[in-house]
Amino acid sequence: MTTPEVTRRLAAYLVNSKAESIPAPVTHEAVRTFLNWLGCALGGARHETMDVAISALQEFSGPPRASVLGRAERFDMLNAALLNGISSHVLDFDDTHLKTIIHPAGPVASCILALAETRPVTGREFLHALVLGVEAECRIGNAVYPNHYDVGWHITGTTGVFGAAAAAGKILGLSEQQMTWALGIAATQSSGLREMFGTMCKSFHPGAAARNGLLAAQLAAKNFTSSDRGIEAPRGFANVLSTKQDYREIVDGLGERFEILLNSYKPFACGIVIHPTIDGCVQLRNEHGLKPEDVEAVFVRAHPLVLELTGKRTPQTGLEGKFSVFHSAAVALIEGKAAEHEYTDPVVRDPVVIGLRDRVEVETSPEIREDEAYLEVRLRDGRVLQKHVPHAIGSLERPMSDQDLEAKFRALAENVLPPPRLDELIRLCWNIETAREVGAIARAAVA
Amino acid sequence: MTTPEVTRRLAAYLVNSKAESIPAPVTHEAVRTFLNWLGCALGGARHETMDVAISALQEFSGPPRASVLGRAERFDMLNAALLNGISSHVLDFDDTHLKTIIHPAGPVASCILALAETRPVTGREFLHALVLGVEAECRIGNAVYPNHYDVGWHITGTTGVFGAAAAAGKILGLSEQQMTWALGIAATQSSGLREMFGTMCKSFHPGAAARNGLLAAQLAAKNFTSSDRGIEAPRGFANVLSTKQDYREIVDGLGERFEILLNSYKPFACGIVIHPTIDGCVQLRNEHGLKPEDVEAVFVRAHPLVLELTGKRTPQTGLEGKFSVFHSAAVALIEGKAAEHEYTDPVVRDPVVIGLRDRVEVETSPEIREDEAYLEVRLRDGRVLQKHVPHAIGSLERPMSDQDLEAKFRALAENVLPPPRLDELIRLCWNIETAREVGAIARAAVA
Repeated sequence: MTTPEVTRRLAAYLVNSKAESIPAPVTHEAVRTFLNWLGCALGGARHETMDVAISALQEFSGPPRASVLGRAERFDMLNAALLNGISSHVLDFDDTHLKTIIHPAGPVASCILALAETRPVTGREFLHALVLGVEAECRIGNAVYPNHYDVGWHITGTTGVFGAAAAAGKILGLSEQQMTWALGIAATQSSGLREMFGTMCKSFHPGAAARNGLLAAQLAAKNFTSSDRGIEAPRGFANVLSTKQDYREIVDGLGERFEILLNSYKPFACGIVIHPTIDGCVQLRNEHGLKPEDVEAVFVRAHPLVLELTGKRTPQTGLEGKFSVFHSAAVALIEGKAAEHEYTDPVVRDPVVIGLRDRVEVETSPEIREDEAYLEVRLRDGRVLQKHVPHAIGSLERPMSDQDLEAKFRALAENVLPPPRLDELIRLCWNIETAREVGAIARAAVA
Repeated sequence: MTTPEVTRRLAAYLVNSKAESIPAPVTHEAVRTFLNWLGCALGGARHETMDVAISALQEFSGPPRASVLGRAERFDMLNAALLNGISSHVLDFDDTHLKTIIHPAGPVASCILALAETRPVTGREFLHALVLGVEAECRIGNAVYPNHYDVGWHITGTTGVFGAAAAAGKILGLSEQQMTWALGIAATQSSGLREMFGTMCKSFHPGAAARNGLLAAQLAAKNFTSSDRGIEAPRGFANVLSTKQDYREIVDGLGERFEILLNSYKPFACGIVIHPTIDGCVQLRNEHGLKPEDVEAVFVRAHPLVLELTGKRTPQTGLEGKFSVFHSAAVALIEGKAAEHEYTDPVVRDPVVIGLRDRVEVETSPEIREDEAYLEVRLRDGRVLQKHVPHAIGSLERPMSDQDLEAKFRALAENVLPPPRLDELIRLCWNIETAREVGAIARAAVA
């Protein structure tokens, strides 16, 4: 069996795809993906990782034509793509293509928003390129997942570079040959090791993917040649970086099904195993107008991983709070959310939070699914409230609503931009499809 | 058996190594490596690959503080490192660490010469960093070769990024922890596929390695964190990119043996299988003052690969000339060399060259080694000259002399720089060890 011309067929699809052929729900999901990504980038903008990266890169920036979201510094588009890719992933709060655990937006949106500051790009063009970039990235991921991930590759970095190259190549109007080369130049830069998890290098991966993919498209636009079979050749990406190669995942049904519809968004700023518990607490609080002093005790029944991974009884720091189901249940009942702010040191040390946290009990059972939880809240007035969460908010079965996403965005960005700017930025995001010039959104997002 | 702390031990050696501990022959080999690299970069400076890369990168350069060798454009140091790495490899004429077929200088020298234009670096510091960078790169290569290469990695790209990071990190004065991180940041950028051979991406690999290694050192200097076990961790470089991991190759005998002593230089601008034939022809010409009109016929006996790979009887273009042992023998007898110029279209089409080429006969025998050849030249005056080349010039058994390297340099650079500038540059190279400021060499090498 000969290998099909995978790279060329993917390139042909990317080049020939028309914006009007993208179904409305797909475009709307792209808007949601963009909003969520932008919020994460704003929320991560002041992270220490960003301070360090900016201080290292500042002296090498070309003419500052692109924005670093949530900050005052401006860079050339390649470095801006790198930096926005870092900030959008640094809180581990960005989107997830659950089938491959790729975080799709970081490499792609960081790449093309920076590009859109150097040339006029309409909202329609931008969303089209975002859809196609995510498509290329996730299909290539599908073809090699899970073997590729299992061996130790950080799949967001290794496939993100293809997504960025595809999206930027679309905006640059590459020919089929040039797009084939762009994917090849991306293939030969594909990198990022899982060993780096827990270090600043983890968020460097989507940033590097955004920058390297943008460079790939830029080089291809000038006819910098590459292999025509960068993905499928015996010494190409899929064979060298994976023991599994299912090329049908890349070439079948192009233009018929869209990977971005499988994208999901994290509602809470902590590990996904405690999301069902938090979700139930938020629902009970909002349905019954609960105050912390009303609550006598909280009983949670959840999947065994919850205590294994997040069983910290008395967290002392914000970071430890992320590994405490007890703290997470308490802040969810008190604040009705579990955003970055709820995992800061002062909140973890707040006596009211501690008081309620100590009244939370957790039992686990292997019969309860990972995205499921049962809650019982006993009130001081004798009432007993119950809540079954069959699927946590943020799962594909129960996606975050547009309103939820907007609330998440506000929580992430509220300390970075003043309220009127925030309102304006949210309005621009929801209306991006009709934007005449997407660069304006980037400029509205600087501090 | 637990894995030793490979990354940290290598980092500790790099950080603690003193220039005065480097033996004089090692330093002299570094000077030869540098001269050869600089000549190759000058010779490749006007290649189409460079024109394309420069046109793609020009608008994104930061303040132009570093030179592109052999050209007038200047770039920020990261982009200059990328471009000089491309030009030094684009003719496939650069140095080779025969044990791993790494081309060591491209990533390392391109990185630190650009760095040396942004801060004062003495010749002594520079050569020390060059030795250490080549050491890190080739030792890491030794640890994973040949499996790593066989699976499809272009080892000059994948290990070059470590060499560049190590050398730049040495010049930046990184601490042991920072050097450990620099190697980790290098590990997570390691990339480059052999599928790209035959395209512009091949020479992009050492360029990207130079740039990415420089960025790794720069980030580490600002305390951008990475894994402490980027090379040896279960999900680190050696396990993810290779099925062989011999860590003794990295940590044994550090400071006692030096990989740069295994570096070799190509004397002729064509595939290595015809080097013994060319070598013999050059020797006969020089020993006997031969002119083309003196020669009646040339008989060559060589290894079978010579006709398999370079058996083109009537080449029509410069490139085809590289695949013709007949053309190569003719130009070697006529010109006494086989540099880039001897493989240009006009030379291949020169009637005198064609006349002699057609009087060359080649026989092969599996009993003759690849680096060996037997020659017999019959002259019009009846004399018969013979020459046995047991090891071709450029092999480790018979390395190019300093004079040979200088002649190669001149041939590569003569059309790029005017003669007085060329003389001055060669003088600067041979005296680099006492240079007060190495950046001056880069500035002397611009067109």
